[in-house]
Amino acid sequence: MAIFLALRSPEVEVIGLTTIYGNVYTTLATRNALHLLEVAGRTDIPVAEGSHVTITKGTKLRIADFVHGADGLGNQNFDPPKGKPVEQSAAAFLVEQAKLHPGKVTVVALGPLTNIALAIELDPEFCKNIGQIVLLGGAFSVNGNVNPAAEANIFGDPDAADIVFTCGADILAVGINVTHQVVLTDAERDKLIQSNGKFAQYLCKILEVYFSYHQEAYSMRGVYLHDPTALLAAVNPSLLTYTEGAVRVQTTGITRGLTLLYDKQKRFGEVTEWTDKPTVKVAVTVDAPTVVKLLMERLMES
Amino acid sequence: MAIFLALRSPEVEVIGLTTIYGNVYTTLATRNALHLLEVAGRTDIPVAEGSHVTITKGTKLRIADFVHGADGLGNQNFDPPKGKPVEQSAAAFLVEQAKLHPGKVTVVALGPLTNIALAIELDPEFCKNIGQIVLLGGAFSVNGNVNPAAEANIFGDPDAADIVFTCGADILAVGINVTHQVVLTDAERDKLIQSNGKFAQYLCKILEVYFSYHQEAYSMRGVYLHDPTALLAAVNPSLLTYTEGAVRVQTTGITRGLTLLYDKQKRFGEVTEWTDKPTVKVAVTVDAPTVVKLLMERLMES
Repeated sequence: MAIFLALRSPEVEVIGLTTIYGNVYTTLATRNALHLLEVAGRTDIPVAEGSHVTITKGTKLRIADFVHGADGLGNQNFDPPKGKPVEQSAAAFLVEQAKLHPGKVTVVALGPLTNIALAIELDPEFCKNIGQIVLLGGAFSVNGNVNPAAEANIFGDPDAADIVFTCGADILAVGINVTHQVVLTDAERDKLIQSNGKFAQYLCKILEVYFSYHQEAYSMRGVYLHDPTALLAAVNPSLLTYTEGAVRVQTTGITRGLTLLYDKQKRFGEVTEWTDKPTVKVAVTVDAPTVVKLLMERLMES
Repeated sequence: MAIFLALRSPEVEVIGLTTIYGNVYTTLATRNALHLLEVAGRTDIPVAEGSHVTITKGTKLRIADFVHGADGLGNQNFDPPKGKPVEQSAAAFLVEQAKLHPGKVTVVALGPLTNIALAIELDPEFCKNIGQIVLLGGAFSVNGNVNPAAEANIFGDPDAADIVFTCGADILAVGINVTHQVVLTDAERDKLIQSNGKFAQYLCKILEVYFSYHQEAYSMRGVYLHDPTALLAAVNPSLLTYTEGAVRVQTTGITRGLTLLYDKQKRFGEVTEWTDKPTVKVAVTVDAPTVVKLLMERLMES
């Protein structure tokens, strides 16, 4: 949904897709990215394949294939794409694009943050060159969606997430405390089905699994619009309000993957793990009706 | 303040004080407990000395002597008490009292939870015998007061806290997310000073350090009534509203001491560290004006 939405957003130019594990393994994510660009008729956009493993090697991947189906696209058995990813790794692609257009590139990070952490390791200037990182991740002051402590994208690679949050780049984190406010209802899906929009038609089929998952996990008839919300926040920041502070990620123990924002209300006598860490933006509220409206309009265009 | 408040609360009978490190080392806490009972003329109440170390031996104690002064009583250089603690340890005392009066004893735990965890280890029946544990501890969905992740009482012994939260007893946790709503202002302290109440007079002197600490750490002219709020919650539960769920404590890493409540909004596909853990009550709101009013009234009685 977020990819199609980006392609239908006149405010932005999509200069590439990078892939990462999460709902599927990275190889399949790359296949799906190429497939979606072929569906959209935008094979001019390069796909750079991301990391197959977490930044701290040896960590077992968590692949949440129950959210969007085993293929990550609602079990629709699409034909394999004709295209191929570029030779460059996702991290190298990110570094190069940021260097080519300093301050102009926005990364919309919709999965675990491994590629971005690798880009930071590859090029210490990356955090200065990149315009903004809008990341979908974290559960700020609310329960997670993998377990009570952790949100899935951060849980996917907590070490990478802590590197990214503390790298000094201009970061806007959109957590599930915000995206859980943005729901696409059954009725709205019906409108999508009835429209002539090519993307709307395509998406309604693959959303079946996602709707079932929400019924199961949250007892709701509707789905959270996590990724589209983050994408639209990058396109139009005024859709959100945010607070600012240092964010650290717990990387061990029962709350592994927990994101913790220091709101600077108290001056601590002792030095803490948040002291002197760069400030990032953390989304607090969202104009949910407008996000849903923009999503519907843009996906229903024929 | 909480001890004097308990002694002036006709709804309850104080059957003993147990001591623990936190703002001072345990030895000094015991001395102070005996001293306060002598000030109050209540040397009939036994004092049982608590643990000198955390439940996981070898952890360095954090003693926050900057909150109430080096002596824990506002640096007033009081004479040593005449009395002595009972022979029994705090843990043994808790176990015995719970067994003597099953379901009737409330523990108001105002420091690290080491003694209670030791009582649970000493007697597996303790959690069944104890009436209720009202504990002052945790920072639920807010920043801590030791660092952004942890509240001081839980940070003092996170392993003990996790044992207590998961033991199955009837537990009400009053965290700083609630006690930060209850402030004693400068003006209210002036009223206490002008009253004839013996306790009011005594407390105003020792509160100087505590007021300075709040000015320093929070830029506020007033003090948080942490312990009195927990005590009054035990005396009159209707002063609070609460939610229910399993609470676990992070015991390692940068968020060591963090308390995390699972609110049961989502059914997780995977087994989590919160699955099948007993439900506890976690305070959410407090009738702050009534807490302050009760405190003032009871401490100003002559």
